[in-house]
Amino acid sequence: MQLPDADFLFQLADVAAKETLPRFRQPLQVHNKPREGYTFDPVTEADREAEKAIRRVIEAQFPDHAILGEEFGRSGEGDLLWVIDPVDGTRPFICGVPVWGTLIGLTVKGIAQFGIMSQPYTGERFWATPEGAWSDGPLGQRSLQVRDVGGLESATLFSSAPELFHSPLKERFQSLVDSVRLTRFGADCYAFAMLASGHVDICVEPGLQPYDIVALTPLVEKAGGVITTFDGGRPEDGGDVIAAATPKLHEAALRLLNG
Amino acid sequence: MQLPDADFLFQLADVAAKETLPRFRQPLQVHNKPREGYTFDPVTEADREAEKAIRRVIEAQFPDHAILGEEFGRSGEGDLLWVIDPVDGTRPFICGVPVWGTLIGLTVKGIAQFGIMSQPYTGERFWATPEGAWSDGPLGQRSLQVRDVGGLESATLFSSAPELFHSPLKERFQSLVDSVRLTRFGADCYAFAMLASGHVDICVEPGLQPYDIVALTPLVEKAGGVITTFDGGRPEDGGDVIAAATPKLHEAALRLLNG
Repeated sequence: MQLPDADFLFQLADVAAKETLPRFRQPLQVHNKPREGYTFDPVTEADREAEKAIRRVIEAQFPDHAILGEEFGRSGEGDLLWVIDPVDGTRPFICGVPVWGTLIGLTVKGIAQFGIMSQPYTGERFWATPEGAWSDGPLGQRSLQVRDVGGLESATLFSSAPELFHSPLKERFQSLVDSVRLTRFGADCYAFAMLASGHVDICVEPGLQPYDIVALTPLVEKAGGVITTFDGGRPEDGGDVIAAATPKLHEAALRLLNG
Repeated sequence: MQLPDADFLFQLADVAAKETLPRFRQPLQVHNKPREGYTFDPVTEADREAEKAIRRVIEAQFPDHAILGEEFGRSGEGDLLWVIDPVDGTRPFICGVPVWGTLIGLTVKGIAQFGIMSQPYTGERFWATPEGAWSDGPLGQRSLQVRDVGGLESATLFSSAPELFHSPLKERFQSLVDSVRLTRFGADCYAFAMLASGHVDICVEPGLQPYDIVALTPLVEKAGGVITTFDGGRPEDGGDVIAAATPKLHEAALRLLNG
């Protein structure tokens, strides 16, 4: 079984960055008076071109691996499946806020074993292999390690947006918000990277797709954290997902979220 | 009347960055088992040391200017007042998310005329002088210019956090949320910089202090935007503040926020 190394993950992140970064902070995607039939949508262009570029490199190096991407669906079959979200966090992307990321993960028989989150504007990368998890960026290379703050009353909680939660989950999420020390919204995949880095304790995201979470799963797990669906299962297929820095926080948060 | 230039604003941002950046993404500020009487609080340290450093440079260059800082209060008197928030966005700071900033503004007879928002982790600066407003960072130097998306139905709204809004403002803010295309939370001062850069249309922040908003005011105004308190007055004294890319959005949003 032919597996990638970290350098290969970087190579994928590099070709994606060449497509995403030049389209970040470009003029408004839908002009007030667009020319007939013409819509300039930099985030969609970034998504499509980055996924194409990533696929080309994977197909050249690992022609027998399968690929699942947000933009172009699934190709190939077998035990080795690459799962790609070329721009995770399209909302922060269109708002100019650099908490979006390119997510590339590899599952082996359904279990996420390799993953990278690349934020090219800040020059940051967070990646995991079976050997461990690391980050690199303006502060240099670091090994990723979750922190242990104790119970919920000391924890920092993140989610992308409050409107993701609908009744009865909305009320259950609010009881979690009321139980933690600090709740913040709006960091999307970046919040998972901060959890793996030891700065955030719980991330809760309902309704995920596989490409939203596969790359982040080994980051969290190799940093010592726990990541599952709300029913405690593996997160690779998406759904309602929780990541926590410790088993204790994972259990306490799930008790509230499951009502 | 002796006034600064942009280079002096950069000099202030540089001395602040030397105090803030080394304390960003450091280990947890309150350990589970702190030594007796010992608490390591990097954000408070960053705040205090950065403000001290900024004050030293201002006092050396402009000894007759007054200074108002978040950490050390007011010193001096006169028509020229520097207003400093050494770390605006302490919550994102402690979570590792680089949407905090060092805010330094100068008011002349109560009107903000100079301002800089510096984000040293991303290497970004957004600044304004009476001559205009600019940004510099990974994508190079740009002139700041708000965009015009038309009405509320096309607008992107930002605020730091939903829990800032209490009834009856909570319900009024919700009606604004229901009227816009996209609402995002969690970008603090960074959202104002994105408004001035033409990527965000409305920022709403209740209960601000002068040091939260003075530096951002000329950024918004020199980029062509509107920034006032909810009653339409000047924002330099803080309070409930709204910034909008256009007078039309400003008026439409205030109509909803004022009930």
